[in-house]
Amino acid sequence: MTTATVDIAFLTAAELGRAYRSGELKPTDVVRSLLARIERLQPTVRAYITVTGERAMAEAEAAERALAVGDTRPLLGVPMAYKDIYLTAGVRTTGGSALYEHHVPEMTATTIRLLSEAGAIFMGKVATHEFASGISPEDHPLPPARNPWNLERIPGGSSSGSGAALAAGLAMGALGSDTGGSIRHPGTACGIAALKPTYGRCSRVGVFPLSWSLDHTGPMARSCEDLALMLQALAGYDPLDPASIETPVDDYTATINDGVAGLKIGVMRSWYEAKTHPDVIAAVENAIGVLRDLGAEIVDVDIPNLELEKVLSIIMGAEAYAYHKHDLETRRELYPPVLRNRMLSGGLYSADEYIDAQRARDLVCRSVAATMKDVDILLSPTRGKTALTFPEAYGDYMGAVSFTGLFNLTGQPAISIPCGFGTDDMPIGLQLAGRPFAEATVLRAANAYESATTWHKRHPAL
Amino acid sequence: MTTATVDIAFLTAAELGRAYRSGELKPTDVVRSLLARIERLQPTVRAYITVTGERAMAEAEAAERALAVGDTRPLLGVPMAYKDIYLTAGVRTTGGSALYEHHVPEMTATTIRLLSEAGAIFMGKVATHEFASGISPEDHPLPPARNPWNLERIPGGSSSGSGAALAAGLAMGALGSDTGGSIRHPGTACGIAALKPTYGRCSRVGVFPLSWSLDHTGPMARSCEDLALMLQALAGYDPLDPASIETPVDDYTATINDGVAGLKIGVMRSWYEAKTHPDVIAAVENAIGVLRDLGAEIVDVDIPNLELEKVLSIIMGAEAYAYHKHDLETRRELYPPVLRNRMLSGGLYSADEYIDAQRARDLVCRSVAATMKDVDILLSPTRGKTALTFPEAYGDYMGAVSFTGLFNLTGQPAISIPCGFGTDDMPIGLQLAGRPFAEATVLRAANAYESATTWHKRHPAL
Repeated sequence: MTTATVDIAFLTAAELGRAYRSGELKPTDVVRSLLARIERLQPTVRAYITVTGERAMAEAEAAERALAVGDTRPLLGVPMAYKDIYLTAGVRTTGGSALYEHHVPEMTATTIRLLSEAGAIFMGKVATHEFASGISPEDHPLPPARNPWNLERIPGGSSSGSGAALAAGLAMGALGSDTGGSIRHPGTACGIAALKPTYGRCSRVGVFPLSWSLDHTGPMARSCEDLALMLQALAGYDPLDPASIETPVDDYTATINDGVAGLKIGVMRSWYEAKTHPDVIAAVENAIGVLRDLGAEIVDVDIPNLELEKVLSIIMGAEAYAYHKHDLETRRELYPPVLRNRMLSGGLYSADEYIDAQRARDLVCRSVAATMKDVDILLSPTRGKTALTFPEAYGDYMGAVSFTGLFNLTGQPAISIPCGFGTDDMPIGLQLAGRPFAEATVLRAANAYESATTWHKRHPAL
Repeated sequence: MTTATVDIAFLTAAELGRAYRSGELKPTDVVRSLLARIERLQPTVRAYITVTGERAMAEAEAAERALAVGDTRPLLGVPMAYKDIYLTAGVRTTGGSALYEHHVPEMTATTIRLLSEAGAIFMGKVATHEFASGISPEDHPLPPARNPWNLERIPGGSSSGSGAALAAGLAMGALGSDTGGSIRHPGTACGIAALKPTYGRCSRVGVFPLSWSLDHTGPMARSCEDLALMLQALAGYDPLDPASIETPVDDYTATINDGVAGLKIGVMRSWYEAKTHPDVIAAVENAIGVLRDLGAEIVDVDIPNLELEKVLSIIMGAEAYAYHKHDLETRRELYPPVLRNRMLSGGLYSADEYIDAQRARDLVCRSVAATMKDVDILLSPTRGKTALTFPEAYGDYMGAVSFTGLFNLTGQPAISIPCGFGTDDMPIGLQLAGRPFAEATVLRAANAYESATTWHKRHPAL
């Protein structure tokens, strides 16, 4: 591996775009280098399910021609990887499941189309927890991705391949989806930047549903600036998504460097403290100090727990069962036993239990909305601990959602950015959540922290 | 009964306000006259559950003092009646049920407070189907209201007392609530004007819930102008109602006389025709002709049925059970058997059946929203037939929702106004529905029709 190759692999999308426009780099060289790196690391990291090498090269050539005639779109020629629950016309889309192992859809998800229109290069489809839900066992036809920081650990989930591809230098941007934390969890586990936008901000058309009232699509990247560039392409109304909301799209890069002076950040200490490892507490306390030094007003806020995990379990379980019940009846053997049993248990809830859960969710939303009248940002760790080993993860389904799931219930935008490493040398993530549709504020606060620190510039040795 | 008394009883709220401000009438005289009329008609019409005579006289005196110093609020001194599922501090609120026969709440519903602040006089609480759901039997401690046009017939429901009080000249305005049509059904049955506003437009705080995702509060009156005046007071954001939406409130009277020229009205003929009595078809066809003559563009629209009644049954049944299950377990004997069995059957749905119903509802919403891109107003009868007799009504629970329930699923604003009489001499209602939050357009179209016709000026001989 030459030094030049490493430099390319870990460039941000924005840096890559600037290097293209200055003539320093060429899309075909970048894609060729990345394809070689993917091939080399696939046996260990297993980030990709399907690599679309020929298509990527053809798109790189097209990007090169566009650059030559002065096309300055920031994502032009930037290699991207898409979670394999996003449908892609003509490209196998497995949903991480044996049920769809050889499925080739006829349509492409709206969000992928939008990134393609913004000039992004389609590198391939990356690993996902099965149906964005359970981790597949090792003997599954589509085995799980591994964490580039430590191959014994999970890369977080369910957007596991998206996180792994970014951390391993195998794509400059990725799409994930987030029902209980599935964008932010690989964000923290892999030490990358990951944004769950507001519910209704980005289209879910052409994406396998897990839980229709909690599912979000969103960008994963190597920096806050990259998230802003991707969100600019992704955000917007889609009349075909019943959850989509018609509301203006901000200019996310315009304010990203405005800093945190004047922003009020509510630290949810009483909410997360007892469930958080000392390593994570230390990293988050450090991050709070950095934000304070940068001019943010830091206050403590008190959010009641309100049986969050129970509410999430019922809503997610019942909605997933409603979607899967036909396949669970007719092709039961294609679900791994753990996932099958969890899915089937979602069918045991009665309508009033589900309704009670949705009403409890309303109480949560009202409580958080009241708090958000006083603060611009809510701060917590993304997760209480660093990435688990595979055996640990198989037994800890709901643990992964404990700090992230709140914002699936409320629909607020929430980001995870790297803020340190544990004594186990695994990345730690800081979660910042904003008011509905205030992605610009979230990105601004996160970028202020990122610009003042170097965690995001560390990469695993592979 | 003197002619003067009759004239007062059937004035509109707007006419009454003008007569106050010109000095022609005084609030104390009007309230005294109405209280006498209520007393005389209570044994036959049974519109009221609780008459607050002393309070009404005190408020009339206060209104008189305000008028004397030039207070020009349009609803000042206008007598109003409130459906007995609206909580009223210090005034018995029964919900139409034996469970709450002697219940005196400590809080007042937000909407009643808003009307009081606009100057309305609190005449009392009026009959409701039990918990806004089932009609109570004759031997119930709170027997049902009767239709002033024919005492053998129901006044429609569930806002039965509100409709009966308006039709019988016992109030100039009323509050109803609408989960499947419960504002509009008494609107058509009693020959009055009744508006279900957009879901989220008017607060539901302090109102007994029936089905939280379908429940609406709204005004019932004697003219479209009165509905506009009431809605002006009622519309607005209420942070305590999780369904409330923060969006600007239009000036509803400013455009009410703008006519229908330029408006495109979609007639849902294929949707309602087969289920509608020839008398109603004739009246509605006549109304379509009037609107066309007034300059509206009339087109046919095709809305698929999509198992509307099944979807409504599941959502309404499961949500009502979720609210009532505790009382159904502990005080079962206080529910009449028909209502009890219906409520209990709502507990038999599984979560996935409810979720499937909500997803089917999304398809309905998308289909109607697509149609509403091309038309300003959807037109249908409010109901396929005139008011049923009591025995007929006990056996026809879901029949009442067949044309109204669609707009509970979609949340669009929908009005019912009188458009004729059947061969049975009972009133017939025209339903006009608009885009979300386009109450001003709905009122404008309805008022154009009302201004060109005289149906709303007919009153039952009592």
